[in-house]
Amino acid sequence: MAVGLGPLPTLHPVPGFELGIASAGIKRPGRKDVVVMRCAEGSSVAGVFTLNAFCAAPVILSKQRVQGTVRYLLTNTGNANAGTGAPGLAAAERTCAKLAELTGVPAESVLPFSTGVIGEPLPVEKIEGALQAALDNLSENNWAEAATGIMTTDTLPKGASRQFQHDGVTVTVTGISKGAGMIRPNMATMLGYIATDAKVAPKVLKDLMLDGANKSFNRITIDGDTSTNDCCMLIATGKANLPEVTEASGALFEALKKAVFDVCMEVAQAIVRDGEGATKFVTVQVNGGGNHQECLDVGYAVAHSPLIKTALFASDPNWGRILAAVGRAGVPELDVSLIDVYLDNVCIASQGGRSPSYTEAQGSAVMAQEEITIRIELGRGACSETIWTTDLSHEYVKINAEYRT
Amino acid sequence: MAVGLGPLPTLHPVPGFELGIASAGIKRPGRKDVVVMRCAEGSSVAGVFTLNAFCAAPVILSKQRVQGTVRYLLTNTGNANAGTGAPGLAAAERTCAKLAELTGVPAESVLPFSTGVIGEPLPVEKIEGALQAALDNLSENNWAEAATGIMTTDTLPKGASRQFQHDGVTVTVTGISKGAGMIRPNMATMLGYIATDAKVAPKVLKDLMLDGANKSFNRITIDGDTSTNDCCMLIATGKANLPEVTEASGALFEALKKAVFDVCMEVAQAIVRDGEGATKFVTVQVNGGGNHQECLDVGYAVAHSPLIKTALFASDPNWGRILAAVGRAGVPELDVSLIDVYLDNVCIASQGGRSPSYTEAQGSAVMAQEEITIRIELGRGACSETIWTTDLSHEYVKINAEYRT
Repeated sequence: MAVGLGPLPTLHPVPGFELGIASAGIKRPGRKDVVVMRCAEGSSVAGVFTLNAFCAAPVILSKQRVQGTVRYLLTNTGNANAGTGAPGLAAAERTCAKLAELTGVPAESVLPFSTGVIGEPLPVEKIEGALQAALDNLSENNWAEAATGIMTTDTLPKGASRQFQHDGVTVTVTGISKGAGMIRPNMATMLGYIATDAKVAPKVLKDLMLDGANKSFNRITIDGDTSTNDCCMLIATGKANLPEVTEASGALFEALKKAVFDVCMEVAQAIVRDGEGATKFVTVQVNGGGNHQECLDVGYAVAHSPLIKTALFASDPNWGRILAAVGRAGVPELDVSLIDVYLDNVCIASQGGRSPSYTEAQGSAVMAQEEITIRIELGRGACSETIWTTDLSHEYVKINAEYRT
Repeated sequence: MAVGLGPLPTLHPVPGFELGIASAGIKRPGRKDVVVMRCAEGSSVAGVFTLNAFCAAPVILSKQRVQGTVRYLLTNTGNANAGTGAPGLAAAERTCAKLAELTGVPAESVLPFSTGVIGEPLPVEKIEGALQAALDNLSENNWAEAATGIMTTDTLPKGASRQFQHDGVTVTVTGISKGAGMIRPNMATMLGYIATDAKVAPKVLKDLMLDGANKSFNRITIDGDTSTNDCCMLIATGKANLPEVTEASGALFEALKKAVFDVCMEVAQAIVRDGEGATKFVTVQVNGGGNHQECLDVGYAVAHSPLIKTALFASDPNWGRILAAVGRAGVPELDVSLIDVYLDNVCIASQGGRSPSYTEAQGSAVMAQEEITIRIELGRGACSETIWTTDLSHEYVKINAEYRT
């Protein structure tokens, strides 16, 4: 069902960052469900984490540990270790301690990540039993396998890669992500890992991660349900033979920033393209807002409206539902006579009603496409925001009604 | 598909309030789609209207005119006259003027109401052509026919009636409503009409309407999409031989208030029971909040979560999704260790994780019911709020994907 999402692009290895995949049999025997990632000594690491108050045990632990030295990231699928209370925290600590013991690093340098069903006890022994196989499998060339290893209801693996040259040195940024449901990231997506061989000062890396996530992961929504397990990590190994990147690095900083943002955007949009039951990839663009918050309020009212999402699924240009969503978004003193609404470049509504030039045939032609932009011009100011989302299909209901069966 | 909603109960006539139904053939020839209601001279009338900024032309007009003397309410289904700009306003005025001409009242005493598809021009001539037949049909005994005449995607008509005695005089309160989708009323529901033969001072009637709507219509949600056309009207004809009711009327005021609130609640809940594709009637009760707003924020996060709604449809006690929704509701400094979550009286989660006493069999037994209460104890204070909603089924997607076809 994925919309405009093909096979993985070439994922260039990042010197100093290795990935190893193994099978712990958490949900099904033989399924690759454990991924270990090793960061070269001296790497700097930044992360953004869900703002859900019921955040999962691994999120609690990784949020603390990312402040110190990070050497390993340990990910399992099939079990979210969320809603598991104190025993869940102890379980996450045990799996990290085991990996630390096998590799001779401090336990605090291992960060855990989990995704899957909420509320079931983490099968610690199964995961521990798979760690040595994952370590034996470590390689800089395993990005594609890792992208598959972190999937849950995803139908396709998701990854992106960029390279640029600076002073004759090639710098690589490669990332992978997973997620298809319970997707309205708030500071990060379900799971995302992005690595570069640039050397980056920790403060700069943190800002790059925050800004990158805000423009990409934090602007996608599938069902409005912010997950308990959202995490996105940015690792800089420093293996590229270049000086440390700071905001004063000029062209190098700008090139790295662009590469990181591009990878963030591509893997974040890939999550929407593979959204549960998605048949459409929808860009909601809100322009002319008096401030950014009102643009976001309008954008999310449209992106979350079940009535608009079912009309998108049906390819029905039922633009009245778009007006209704804009009107209920809570923007103070909204003057509907100033608002224009477009499907791609077709003006469907202006001055509070149907655009005089609009014909149903024009609207139907746009709605028949797999990729659609809904553009709302508020006519109040100069702020803009863009959100990416999907439609609501029979398949979405089917997937989520049968998730645990 | 309606949940726990049977045939209409007895709807007692309200002396001084007549209803007439006719067919204008707006969407289909022969369909009863025009309802005229006549209020006896001297009636007082109060109304609450949608807060959607894109409110429909009839809402704009009725909001103004309810301030003056009201004699007729004119309702059509099949066309919402919303998103129609200035021509829509003129069209609503024309239908009212025609009814005023036929009955010899000022045009300003006729209030229009429309429901149906957004964005299409109101078929003024068709409606005008049906008015005399509706007037000829006027009778105090036509509540049931009117309840049917205002339906759109509703599968069943909705009404409720109460009577009480005061000083040997019988007082009646009868109401009807319609609505099944685009339902998250904000000051009123899609359409609701409640009449009593008590004599009520306008200020008191307005307060009764506001309070009644806030506790009933404003606490139901089907899809979170606040409509452009929500209106609820309360009419007091004064035909019962009793003194005018004020807040100082003691037992009479209390009895009337209870009867009005009961009718509001019954017809509001009937809208949820007949929600598009509904297979469950769900009460979301949030207790122990520090203030009412945070109770509502948690309640609506749960009631609007597509993941919880699909789990309800599947009768799957996937309580992790409830925790996740509570956690993302935006309550400041939420201490998850204080939260308990119940399905009916089964404690499913406590202290941030699964309740020690909980078994899947208990949860499954509750989820198999048609009527379910999700109770969330926040442990922060003494405030409570209750919201009523439905599940999200295949049928919901089908109805809304095919609405205009």
